[in-house]
Amino acid sequence: MRRVQVRFLPAELTVEVEPGTPLLEAAYAAGIELHQGCGGQGTCRRCRVAIRSSAPEKAVSGPLWPEGGLTWTLACQARVKKSLTVEVPAAPAPERWEEAVVGEGEQAWILLEAAEEVSTELAPVCFSLSLTLPPPGQEDNADDRRRLLRVLGEQLGGAKIELPLRTMQLLPNLLRENRWQVQGVLCRTPGGYEVAALRPLRNSYHLYGLAVDIGTTTVAAELVNLGSGRVCAARGAYNRQIKYGDDVISRIIYAGEHVEGLEELQGAVIETINRLVAELTAQERIAASDIRAVVYAGNTTMAHLLLGVPPAYLRCEPYTPAFTVPPPVRAGEIGLRVHPRAWVYGIPGVSSYLGGDVVAGVLSTGLDRESPLTLLLDIGTNGEMVLGHQEWLLGCACSAGPAFEGSGVTCGVRAVPGAIEKVEWDPVEREVRVFTIGQQPPVGLCGSGLISALAQLRRAGIVDRTGKFTAGQGGRRLRQREGEWEFVLVEAAQTATGQDVVLTQADIQNLLRAKGAIFAGLRTLLHAVSLDVGQIERFWIAGGFGRYLDLEESIALGLLPPLPGQCFRYVGNTSLKGARRVLLQRHLLEEAVELAERITYLELSLGNTFMEEFISALFIPHTNLELFQRGEGAA
Amino acid sequence: MRRVQVRFLPAELTVEVEPGTPLLEAAYAAGIELHQGCGGQGTCRRCRVAIRSSAPEKAVSGPLWPEGGLTWTLACQARVKKSLTVEVPAAPAPERWEEAVVGEGEQAWILLEAAEEVSTELAPVCFSLSLTLPPPGQEDNADDRRRLLRVLGEQLGGAKIELPLRTMQLLPNLLRENRWQVQGVLCRTPGGYEVAALRPLRNSYHLYGLAVDIGTTTVAAELVNLGSGRVCAARGAYNRQIKYGDDVISRIIYAGEHVEGLEELQGAVIETINRLVAELTAQERIAASDIRAVVYAGNTTMAHLLLGVPPAYLRCEPYTPAFTVPPPVRAGEIGLRVHPRAWVYGIPGVSSYLGGDVVAGVLSTGLDRESPLTLLLDIGTNGEMVLGHQEWLLGCACSAGPAFEGSGVTCGVRAVPGAIEKVEWDPVEREVRVFTIGQQPPVGLCGSGLISALAQLRRAGIVDRTGKFTAGQGGRRLRQREGEWEFVLVEAAQTATGQDVVLTQADIQNLLRAKGAIFAGLRTLLHAVSLDVGQIERFWIAGGFGRYLDLEESIALGLLPPLPGQCFRYVGNTSLKGARRVLLQRHLLEEAVELAERITYLELSLGNTFMEEFISALFIPHTNLELFQRGEGAA
Repeated sequence: MRRVQVRFLPAELTVEVEPGTPLLEAAYAAGIELHQGCGGQGTCRRCRVAIRSSAPEKAVSGPLWPEGGLTWTLACQARVKKSLTVEVPAAPAPERWEEAVVGEGEQAWILLEAAEEVSTELAPVCFSLSLTLPPPGQEDNADDRRRLLRVLGEQLGGAKIELPLRTMQLLPNLLRENRWQVQGVLCRTPGGYEVAALRPLRNSYHLYGLAVDIGTTTVAAELVNLGSGRVCAARGAYNRQIKYGDDVISRIIYAGEHVEGLEELQGAVIETINRLVAELTAQERIAASDIRAVVYAGNTTMAHLLLGVPPAYLRCEPYTPAFTVPPPVRAGEIGLRVHPRAWVYGIPGVSSYLGGDVVAGVLSTGLDRESPLTLLLDIGTNGEMVLGHQEWLLGCACSAGPAFEGSGVTCGVRAVPGAIEKVEWDPVEREVRVFTIGQQPPVGLCGSGLISALAQLRRAGIVDRTGKFTAGQGGRRLRQREGEWEFVLVEAAQTATGQDVVLTQADIQNLLRAKGAIFAGLRTLLHAVSLDVGQIERFWIAGGFGRYLDLEESIALGLLPPLPGQCFRYVGNTSLKGARRVLLQRHLLEEAVELAERITYLELSLGNTFMEEFISALFIPHTNLELFQRGEGAA
Repeated sequence: MRRVQVRFLPAELTVEVEPGTPLLEAAYAAGIELHQGCGGQGTCRRCRVAIRSSAPEKAVSGPLWPEGGLTWTLACQARVKKSLTVEVPAAPAPERWEEAVVGEGEQAWILLEAAEEVSTELAPVCFSLSLTLPPPGQEDNADDRRRLLRVLGEQLGGAKIELPLRTMQLLPNLLRENRWQVQGVLCRTPGGYEVAALRPLRNSYHLYGLAVDIGTTTVAAELVNLGSGRVCAARGAYNRQIKYGDDVISRIIYAGEHVEGLEELQGAVIETINRLVAELTAQERIAASDIRAVVYAGNTTMAHLLLGVPPAYLRCEPYTPAFTVPPPVRAGEIGLRVHPRAWVYGIPGVSSYLGGDVVAGVLSTGLDRESPLTLLLDIGTNGEMVLGHQEWLLGCACSAGPAFEGSGVTCGVRAVPGAIEKVEWDPVEREVRVFTIGQQPPVGLCGSGLISALAQLRRAGIVDRTGKFTAGQGGRRLRQREGEWEFVLVEAAQTATGQDVVLTQADIQNLLRAKGAIFAGLRTLLHAVSLDVGQIERFWIAGGFGRYLDLEESIALGLLPPLPGQCFRYVGNTSLKGARRVLLQRHLLEEAVELAERITYLELSLGNTFMEEFISALFIPHTNLELFQRGEGAA
């Protein structure tokens, strides 16, 4: 078949493809990774490129539109018809996203979190034991293996202990060369323990574990010294799956619709973790094979993709996951570059949309073992929450959409340096002041900045209770562009991007849907157990987004309920903390399974009050203002 | 360093080596595998080669002796000094040994044995189950994995069941594409069961197991259809380790004294089994990966070598094995070419010299669950025996030496076609008649032929009770060569080799030591439990050698006690049968461990009556003739 050439600018890369090839594939073939927010559905429009050929409609089939003097198309929708030149816009080029990783501040935060908690009762999933064996003689001539297992059995309380082949092969010489005193490295296995290594007693050895939080957007990992329980290093990075879609639904679609889609997504998250491992081990100056155990927590889709299990049915009624308790695997089986025989354990989840990350959260906060009625809210791409105490636990997940993570919003950015995290309205000057992460020139609005901006605009009367801009308010900053109203928060001259940072009418509606979904989820949970908002004794907020949240503004907007200030606590990355706890306290491996079974999942799409609650919660703060009247002790 | 050339005849192969290289290594480098019976100790003299250079003492260092006009040396002892030509004698060239394998008759025998027993209660270590799962719905939305395990749990009585990664990856699509009806392949694992494969229900599949008896000399294997319990094919081959030494001690030495000796020995037995697998699967027209489980039985040294575990301490006081219960491994871990994830189970042994082959023997005969006092005797390179009944079991091993297997005897051969298996002395003609396996022209004497020959010579008065040739008896057939007396059984003109088949005075001494050791072992066992020979109710003989044994002659010689004929039974290859039973009845995996623990091992070298018994048993039949007076019911 005749092949045609596609030339990509500004990279000056050319590939030959067959006519009919999707432009996105041609770009991949050229080594250019175009950002996709929707998994190739044509909705996120992030893969838009300009056609530089004289007759674009002859060069490609697919959507075409003029903008800024160029003709644009979506690479995921267009197919190549004849040779052409394509210009890839500089921003938001995927390379930029990748490079951004998690900034300096972010690293510091993760490490701070880590330092906070040092486990006192240390019983890690992998540990070393000094072993002194009685030498054999005529009276007691048991074989070496039995002799070893006898001593180990005494120390491990009769658990089933296996001696893998490689250890068995070392055993006879090692025992005799070291006068029957050796050091054993024991690892928790799905069935008991295994003697993962045997070494002379005199040497001291490294034994490390890796705790990983696999978020849809960010992956965070900690390198933990299993001997001391100390977190030596911690790092975060964007999940390299981002290029296949921003949210789990896009990635599930991608995995199902592309021939090797699942393998690509698995490879992307493994690569993300492997790079973190490389950084962490370089920083700590240890070998990757010193990492002998891995515990991860992630939502159910992330767990499926990590293990290469088809996630298709997570999004089909009745939303049945392939597994909730992830099968333990050896690192080598999934290409994780730590010790190839290290066991990789996942924290079990509850259902398709209430995953191991939430169970890890409950585990790390211990709310399941205490009496106060507690709500744990993890706001990420989805909003997940668990309500309850030592007697019962009820959870749900509501699709908040990616607005809080800076996506689906005109000037939305993630919580990177330069992101506006707070907005102040000066009622006298009728002017706006913005505060950015790291005091850098503004690049856009992150989740907390969005909340702050909307709350301030509502307070100033520039938007009404339905979220609509009020004509005549807002002065010169409120303007109409291409038929849509928008409010200019920062003018182009003051930004790092050279473009205005604005909040549009559509942005506000997205934001209200997000906050409305979360509040409606909360109300539905409470309704299911016949409780009121005011009966919540502790309201714990987890996840990266919650860190920058202003309580007053969140309540004013109706995202959070009007509880007394002391009820609220920011509990950090509880998914990562939960993974670390399991790493350091092996009995939690089983307890996590029991805990996940204790959490009753409330499916919000089925026969309950969620939809009515959602409609009511689309107002600021709510249709029912009585709900937002502070009681006694309000801050 | 200057290199020298070694040229090997008649193969016309030349290699360059450094001066000082052992001649054996030079031969290996040239691709010539010289037979070693002693593991390179210089005692078996099988690796002797002739030096064809004019000044042999300048060409090599090491032992040199003249014979037949040539100068000979031992390749394992000699080192190359300068370039030379070496002649490798044609027989017994190792290629010949390898080719011989187990002859036609042998194959038929193994298959006959297999047909004899068809298990009625079939519960194989690997089996398939038809599974119908209730589809998920709003009422029961358990994940796929749990749904599967629930159904399996009901069928398998709550055992621990694992779902390996590859099965987990298939599960969601397979269940839905097949309307929740699938076929699971379950394998017994060390900890419970695993779902080794999942398949559509409509197809029918092969599930095979391999039972292996790993003997020091011969390896026998059966291909078993795990669905029907039927033995489809059976084969035997010489253990390719033979070239490293005839007996376990030589191989233990070889493993310890050569840098990669252990790996070589492991590779040799794996290669032996792999070739058998290739033959069996070709015969049955199945794929090697259809073999999903392997159970083997072998002596303790064989088990160590199979798994690559150093056997060095088996021969050092206090004779402590590295293991008696072999760690289960996946076939892929040791390079066994069946399904790479097939579990390979070894039948546990008792001690360094009472191995899994004997435990398999007890298991297959069931003597441990019956009341008659039974002796199970397995005569191979070692003589192993177990005495007892349902209440107690006592075992020992006596080093019979390789005489019964045709080694260490001038004209000894294994039980191959042409081997003399029976000798008759015509007292009238004062002549000898011989009977060979397969009625082929004689090639030498196998074990049963040796016994027969000695018994007939004793009956004819040609040897006395101490085994010495009686001067004046034996006529022209008794002659002296190089100072040693020998009896010519077949003259060169009638043999296949063109050489006389003789029995020398030294051969007789070897044979008496072998039979003496076995009888002394038996007496020592009986003495330990204060019983007499006459109290043995059943005397069962196992192993290839026992098959051709003439009872009358064996009793006359003092190898077997003078029990009534109906006490004796030849029970065949009980090691192989035991392995097959475990393959077909998985509960025996645990029972075999308990059985091995029930057998008390009597160490013959330590504080008992063995040495006195041995001295007495060196006579024909014994110093104490009363022991050999038949009681009532004697045959």
